[in-house]
Amino acid sequence: MRFPIIVLNFKAYEEALGDNGLRLARIAEKIADETGVEIAVCPQHLDLEMIASRVRIPVLAQHVDPHPPGPYTGSVVAEALKAKGVRGSLLNHSERRLQLADIGTAIKRLAQTELVSILCTGDQDISRAGAALNPDMIAVEPPELIGSGIAVSKAKPEVVTETVANVRRVNERVHILCGAGISGPEDVAAAIRLGAEGVLLSSAFVKNADPEGLLREMARSI
Amino acid sequence: MRFPIIVLNFKAYEEALGDNGLRLARIAEKIADETGVEIAVCPQHLDLEMIASRVRIPVLAQHVDPHPPGPYTGSVVAEALKAKGVRGSLLNHSERRLQLADIGTAIKRLAQTELVSILCTGDQDISRAGAALNPDMIAVEPPELIGSGIAVSKAKPEVVTETVANVRRVNERVHILCGAGISGPEDVAAAIRLGAEGVLLSSAFVKNADPEGLLREMARSI
Amino acid sequence: MRFPIIVLNFKAYEEALGDNGLRLARIAEKIADETGVEIAVCPQHLDLEMIASRVRIPVLAQHVDPHPPGPYTGSVVAEALKAKGVRGSLLNHSERRLQLADIGTAIKRLAQTELVSILCTGDQDISRAGAALNPDMIAVEPPELIGSGIAVSKAKPEVVTETVANVRRVNERVHILCGAGISGPEDVAAAIRLGAEGVLLSSAFVKNADPEGLLREMARSI
Amino acid sequence: MRFPIIVLNFKAYEEALGDNGLRLARIAEKIADETGVEIAVCPQHLDLEMIASRVRIPVLAQHVDPHPPGPYTGSVVAEALKAKGVRGSLLNHSERRLQLADIGTAIKRLAQTELVSILCTGDQDISRAGAALNPDMIAVEPPELIGSGIAVSKAKPEVVTETVANVRRVNERVHILCGAGISGPEDVAAAIRLGAEGVLLSSAFVKNADPEGLLREMARSI
Repeated sequence: MRFPIIVLNFKAYEEALGDNGLRLARIAEKIADETGVEIAVCPQHLDLEMIASRVRIPVLAQHVDPHPPGPYTGSVVAEALKAKGVRGSLLNHSERRLQLADIGTAIKRLAQTELVSILCTGDQDISRAGAALNPDMIAVEPPELIGSGIAVSKAKPEVVTETVANVRRVNERVHILCGAGISGPEDVAAAIRLGAEGVLLSSAFVKNADPEGLLREMARSI
Repeated sequence: MRFPIIVLNFKAYEEALGDNGLRLARIAEKIADETGVEIAVCPQHLDLEMIASRVRIPVLAQHVDPHPPGPYTGSVVAEALKAKGVRGSLLNHSERRLQLADIGTAIKRLAQTELVSILCTGDQDISRAGAALNPDMIAVEPPELIGSGIAVSKAKPEVVTETVANVRRVNERVHILCGAGISGPEDVAAAIRLGAEGVLLSSAFVKNADPEGLLREMARSI
Repeated sequence: MRFPIIVLNFKAYEEALGDNGLRLARIAEKIADETGVEIAVCPQHLDLEMIASRVRIPVLAQHVDPHPPGPYTGSVVAEALKAKGVRGSLLNHSERRLQLADIGTAIKRLAQTELVSILCTGDQDISRAGAALNPDMIAVEPPELIGSGIAVSKAKPEVVTETVANVRRVNERVHILCGAGISGPEDVAAAIRLGAEGVLLSSAFVKNADPEGLLREMARSI
Repeated sequence: MRFPIIVLNFKAYEEALGDNGLRLARIAEKIADETGVEIAVCPQHLDLEMIASRVRIPVLAQHVDPHPPGPYTGSVVAEALKAKGVRGSLLNHSERRLQLADIGTAIKRLAQTELVSILCTGDQDISRAGAALNPDMIAVEPPELIGSGIAVSKAKPEVVTETVANVRRVNERVHILCGAGISGPEDVAAAIRLGAEGVLLSSAFVKNADPEGLLREMARSI
């Protein structure tokens, strides 16, 4: 994937389920084409195959289990993502926190399967630890700002700048995104100014009356 | 669904992923047509839409989260199953144990969405408690026999008969399956003789050199 | 233990830690002596031995793990409670939800060790399921009212009456408590009127400027 | 604490419960006095106060929750350890894995309470991430060797040497222990030779017919 990047998390929102999810993914594709900015979408598990087969932009999972294929009822394994044309996965979102050991295993399994890992963290200290696990990207999101409409890049700029500094010290190759409360183009611009290479957002896009307009403005602000 | 029933859990086996999963589901459909026995399949999450759209037999999920649609990253909600033509879900498999409170919520949400719930339990006492939560089916599976090739219906027949008695005392409308180690037609026949209305199996079918032959014999033994 | 009973959960409150916890336990003992009402306290794990050795009223744990003694780092086993003179344990509090299978095992292990189990549930339906697991007591507590100061016995009386009805239908020997928002003597009286045999409370007592006065009034209201 | 150090984890073994635990702690104290080697013990939660008040060697918990004091039923908070004279805690043992975010919080809370943190990890890569969280010590223990009698320092020496290298690169002040399968004095000597500053062991000591003899030999081998 290219940077800067806008990653759109569909969560389990009804507004992003099935046909709604496909519509949102096509909006993302359109704006990516129009602006040249890299945009990825994270649909719900059951929509992954359908959406990945119909858009050209990167499609990512919201979560992947650390297990290899085998007797793991209910698990989503990296091989299943790969088979469907999914390009990678979020990991350890604040709504789906993982054990440290499982994060390490999941990142390795994604890498072995040639899939991209985006590790979510809650602050700059966890970001430093996360960087040592060698994910492709780290998305720092203070949990208290998620869904708040108050952007981390404005309310807590030091979380972004210190994440950038901490991650760089440990691991030069990890790309850094920021999330939580990203609601408008100015939040995206602020994130980039602070050193982030992209943003992760969800409700501001998924629940927007004009998701296309919002995304266009965001992409242009980069 | 009709009873007796054979429920096939694909777990996260590579042998049941993607095209392999579709092939196994079509075998199940063929044997169901041939014998008139109800057979359901439980593919992996990412295969649910694809398989549900291509076979006429019931397709079930291996797990569903108790959440409603909303900000729940990585969750599979009942509404997503419904939208894809999935008919219901396993719950609380020994490889995916749930909290008591979440089981109650998940069963209610499946019912509200007009989906079938199959609650997995580990013994006859948990089955009695499970029956009070009003699932459509209970599948009793002593965890130590899962994948062992030693059938619960032969090694621990009292688990089946006592589950039947316990569940009946609490809730007349719950259907009872048994699982764990079900490997051949004689295990299925034994389960039915003990009062079960079906079986839940996985590796014996998924990893079989001749899954069609095995399933035909099982269906005929009913 | 005798009924009606008042069970006091100290949680991890600083106001109930160490010497503070001992002081609260002695207040409970004093009011139990004075009024003849059974009162039990649930101190923090590290205070259990100290408090159990200094008061004559029943001392219970807030949680016990389902494991037998063995290689389980960080676990509190039933045998450890027994060895310290602790009389039993809460299980599955909404701040410490357990898997269904583990609740079943923990209740059995407590019974085998001759300890009392108090299973916490969130509503009348989970109470019915819980009753089938044969705990000594069920304490129904709608999670949204815990710590709210709005008593379940006043705000949701049907949760109490239906729990009583549901539990009685499944298991005659289980005693029924109610909790969540119990703040004053009138809440206790209402609980008893609705058919509960006791109450479970925490912050209203632990954080009270006059815990002795409150507890005296509560005990007298029974 | 001083280094090298021998840390003895009592787990939930019956052989280390109550009076047995005190006896083992006194053996540790005796050998520490005799040899001058630092030895710490990790009793079960309910024995912490009793043992910490009767021996002069460091007493540690096996686990601590990340919560501050408050409404957290069943939790053990750092303040409770401090109040009982406990000196710190193991964290994230393979029998009690924690979420990444909770490990970060627990280490900070222990530090703020002036308690020592020993973070357990399963391999050299997780050790590197763990070092970034700034614990006082990291104890690397490949889970498959725990309780095996096959010492990590002999079977997988690279796990120890790479942990030392990885941790040093990220954080100079973290002390490094190794565990898993440590059974005799030669395993301890090998660990020290590989760069570890101590060992973490459990069953080999707790279940030994002559724990005093074993511990003396281990301490002398340093």
